Amino acid sequence: MGRATLVAGDWGTSRLRLFLCDADGAAVDTIDGPGASEARDRFAKLFDSLLIDWMSQHGPLPAILCGMVGSSFGWSEAPYLPCPARPEQIAGACVSLRLGRVRIIPGLSCRNRLDAPDLMRGEETQILGALHLDPALRRGQHLLCLPGTHTKWVLLDEGSVREFLTATTGEMFALLSAHSVLVSDEPGRTGSTTITSDAAFSRGLTEHRRFPEASVLHRMFEARSRRLSRDLAAADTAAYLSGLMIASDVRGALELFAATGTVHIVGTAQLASLYAAALNSQGRDSRSIDGAAASLAGLLHVHRLLSRPVAMHGT
Amino acid sequence: MGRATLVAGDWGTSRLRLFLCDADGAAVDTIDGPGASEARDRFAKLFDSLLIDWMSQHGPLPAILCGMVGSSFGWSEAPYLPCPARPEQIAGACVSLRLGRVRIIPGLSCRNRLDAPDLMRGEETQILGALHLDPALRRGQHLLCLPGTHTKWVLLDEGSVREFLTATTGEMFALLSAHSVLVSDEPGRTGSTTITSDAAFSRGLTEHRRFPEASVLHRMFEARSRRLSRDLAAADTAAYLSGLMIASDVRGALELFAATGTVHIVGTAQLASLYAAALNSQGRDSRSIDGAAASLAGLLHVHRLLSRPVAMHGT
Repeated sequence: MGRATLVAGDWGTSRLRLFLCDADGAAVDTIDGPGASEARDRFAKLFDSLLIDWMSQHGPLPAILCGMVGSSFGWSEAPYLPCPARPEQIAGACVSLRLGRVRIIPGLSCRNRLDAPDLMRGEETQILGALHLDPALRRGQHLLCLPGTHTKWVLLDEGSVREFLTATTGEMFALLSAHSVLVSDEPGRTGSTTITSDAAFSRGLTEHRRFPEASVLHRMFEARSRRLSRDLAAADTAAYLSGLMIASDVRGALELFAATGTVHIVGTAQLASLYAAALNSQGRDSRSIDGAAASLAGLLHVHRLLSRPVAMHGT
Repeated sequence: MGRATLVAGDWGTSRLRLFLCDADGAAVDTIDGPGASEARDRFAKLFDSLLIDWMSQHGPLPAILCGMVGSSFGWSEAPYLPCPARPEQIAGACVSLRLGRVRIIPGLSCRNRLDAPDLMRGEETQILGALHLDPALRRGQHLLCLPGTHTKWVLLDEGSVREFLTATTGEMFALLSAHSVLVSDEPGRTGSTTITSDAAFSRGLTEHRRFPEASVLHRMFEARSRRLSRDLAAADTAAYLSGLMIASDVRGALELFAATGTVHIVGTAQLASLYAAALNSQGRDSRSIDGAAASLAGLLHVHRLLSRPVAMHGT
C-alpha cells in the first residue's frame, strides 16, 4: 500500500463513500457510511469516528468532499455556483473547514433550457472527473447524461459546464415500482427497481418510437392495461415502463439540446446501459464513463487544483 | 321518505358508496363502506352486513353495482366490454348474481389513440350518467374528461363510447406529494394532495404554455429548484407542480383527440375546477358534471334499461 495522502469522499443523500488515496491518486482503501439524510446535525462527529483507523495509521490527512454534505442541511453549506462554470472556478468556490483540512465542493446552479432555475450537487464532481479522464471532452460542445434518481443532462462547452437540465425519470420510476398498481397488483410487496428483462425494456423503447410526441402521462397506464390484457408478462411490467420513460426522457433531452455527436453517459453500469440503449434506439451513439471512477477522479482533480502553489490558471 | 325500490352502489378500489333509491330514482339514504381492495374475498358478506338495516326496513331490494366489485378480484367478474359501446350494450353485458337480484356493470376496454389496450371500470357508469343527464351529449362527437387517480379522456360518438385514453396524472401527483423531495424537504411528513393555492396552480399552467412540448419529466424538478431558489414558496410547491402536470395532461389529450367544442368534465368539484382552469388556459371551454351525481344517474339508467319488459332498443 502506497503512503496515504488524502481522504476523498462522495457524501450523497443516501450514502457516504470515502476513499483513502495515495500520492498517485489511487484509492488504497474505502469506507461506506450513512448518507447526508441520516448524518444530519452530526456530520463532523460521524466523519471523525469513521476515520479513526485511517488517522491512527496515517496521521492527520486532508479531506475533499462532494455531495449533499455541502447542502444547506449539510456539514457546511457550499453555495451553488452559477453556470457557466470552469473546473478551476468550481475548485475556487470550495468551502474550507478546519483551517483548510476539509474542503467541500460546491454544487452548480443554472437557468436551464426551459428557463427555470436548475440545481445539481455531487454531479459537478463527476463532470469534473469525466473532463479529467477524457481530454477530448475539454474541446468543443458535448452532451453528457448523468442518470440517477434525478438524471442530469449537461452541456459542456470548451471544458466549462455551460448549462444542464434535470429529469425526474429515476425518481418517478422508483415511486411507481414501490407504490403503484401500474407495476404490480400488490404494490409494496414487490418494489424492485432492477430491470430484469432486456427484451421488455427494448419493447418499451420501440413502442415509444411509434408515438414519440406522446406524453409519458398518457403512456404509463399501458404498463397496467397491457398486463391485464395479457399483452405483457407481470414480471416484465417494470422493464417495459422503464423503457417507455427513459425513451421519453432521452427524446426530450435530444430535442432540447440540439448538440450533435456522441453522448457521454456518466453513471453506474446498469443505468448507463439502459440510457445507451435508449440513445441507440433514437439513432445516437454514446460512450460510458463509470460514475464512481468519475467521482473519485473529480475529487482528486479539485484537490490538485487547490494544492497548486500559485494562482490557478486553467486545468 | 319515498318507498325504497333499489340499492345502487359504486364500489371502487378505496371506497364503497351505497345509495338507497326510491321509485323516482332519488337517493333517500346512503352508506359508505370499505373499498374493493379491503373487501377482497368477502364482498357478499360485507354487502349483506351493510344492508341489514335497509333490508329489515324495506324488505329485499334489487341492487345494481359498478366499479372494482366487477374486477377479476371482485365479487364476480364482469369482463371488460370492448368499445365502441352503446349504453344498452353495457347494460346487456351486466353480470347477474343471486338470480338477478344483484347486477354488476362491466368495465370497458378499447385500443386507444396510442394503439395500446386501455381499460376503465366505474367510469363507464359515470359516462352513462352524463349521457342521461345531458341529452345533448347523445348527438355528435364530444370529448369527456373524468379526472381522478387515473384520468380518463373519453370520445363520445352519437351516444356511444367510441374510445378513451387513461392519464396517470393523478396517481403521479399523489405519489410525488406523499414521497418526493420535489414537493417537500421532508416527504412523508406532509403528503397532502389538496391544492391550496390557486395562484401557484395558475402559475404552473402559465409556465407550461411557454414550453408546451416539453416532457413533464423535464419540468417536475422545477418544483424543487424554484423552491430552493426562493422563486416559489414551500406551501405553493404542490399546487405549482399540479398546474404543470395537469396542463401537460390536457395539452397532450387535446392534441391526440382533435375533437372540437366544449369539453365535459365529470368529477369532483375540486378536480373539475383544476381541469377546467387548465382547459381554459389552453383556449378550451368546459362544462362540469358532478361525478357522484353522474355515477348515481348511470346506475339508475342501467337499472331502468334492464327493467324494461321487452328487448332493449336504444336509450
